Amino acid sequence: MRMSELSRRSGVSVTTIKYYLREGLLPVGRQLSATQAEYDENHLRRLRLIRALIGVRGLSVSATREVLGALAGHTADTHRILGLTLGAIRLADEAEADSPEPAEVDALIEELGWDVHRSAPARLALADTLASLRTLGAPLDRRVLLPYARLAEETAVLDLDQLDGIEDSLEVAERALLLTVLLEPALMALRRMAQQNESARRHAGGADRADC
Amino acid sequence: MRMSELSRRSGVSVTTIKYYLREGLLPVGRQLSATQAEYDENHLRRLRLIRALIGVRGLSVSATREVLGALAGHTADTHRILGLTLGAIRLADEAEADSPEPAEVDALIEELGWDVHRSAPARLALADTLASLRTLGAPLDRRVLLPYARLAEETAVLDLDQLDGIEDSLEVAERALLLTVLLEPALMALRRMAQQNESARRHAGGADRADC
Repeated sequence: MRMSELSRRSGVSVTTIKYYLREGLLPVGRQLSATQAEYDENHLRRLRLIRALIGVRGLSVSATREVLGALAGHTADTHRILGLTLGAIRLADEAEADSPEPAEVDALIEELGWDVHRSAPARLALADTLASLRTLGAPLDRRVLLPYARLAEETAVLDLDQLDGIEDSLEVAERALLLTVLLEPALMALRRMAQQNESARRHAGGADRADC
Repeated sequence: MRMSELSRRSGVSVTTIKYYLREGLLPVGRQLSATQAEYDENHLRRLRLIRALIGVRGLSVSATREVLGALAGHTADTHRILGLTLGAIRLADEAEADSPEPAEVDALIEELGWDVHRSAPARLALADTLASLRTLGAPLDRRVLLPYARLAEETAVLDLDQLDGIEDSLEVAERALLLTVLLEPALMALRRMAQQNESARRHAGGADRADC
């Protein structure tokens, strides 16, 4: 296909495609003439993944190059592909945050029996939040977190189920990104609505806990 | 207590407390002399809630004033307090977003049997995300969303359980904010780690799905 069709099918503008070509994120097409090149389905898949890494996960061009390079070396290693795309493995340009009490998170993960990468940014994100809650006078202990973690396990099963049956590794990576990063606001919206429903169930009719 | 103690116990600087007093968010203390005033536990609770509304939920001063005013009129109505603080009820200065296909979200909520406020911002947030996923070529249908919504129900039960037994309405509002808005990054971090664990379980050993 020509660049105009690649643009139409990927939803990425011609200007942006040219930028990705210059940056080496997208391999050049098969040159037909001095001014025209031909692109194939591999270009389309790769372009969709680039769009998701930059536009959805918010990576820089250089971090995107790093992920694409790593993916190229592990086309059959789904676990590593997911680790790279879902942010389980820290990228070079992701700043290492101060780690407030990672021991607390380590203990939780051990109790859960989870297999989580040592340098996973999510470990620090969790430790950060626990530290913030403590600073604000609302500490959460492990006993409170555990049932949330068990629900997260069930959510992760639903997430991974959606990647089942996709053979192409670039496509696995793209769908994993869309269905995790993009799904986050939807899951938080569902939680807010569920809270409202649960609050109505418990405190309905304006009377304070009349039904409890 | 004097303002210095109010500052120490709330974690809010004296400069900021003076600003909240000028803006009318915090009622003035009992005047002891021309330059000194006395504050009580009610000031402290209210200040903690203001800090949470502005610092955690990210509200403007005028939206915070609106929430505080609404709370004052509904001190015994826990459901309404939660609605206001958790963002179930839209505030005057929260822009009404374009609502892409709310019908889809309405149908989901009906199928779930949830009691959700008509103007809840979470409805639009969910519709937005579904529209984005569709634009990106990864539409999610209701059949896929339903099990996520059921897990959100269980999460909401855990959330509301944490507010049980708190009598003071300002304190209910403050804890509800901390435990919902602030907990979001922690829940997303748990989900990422659970995904990694689930991915390891399914694709362990670097072999593509060797264990499935």
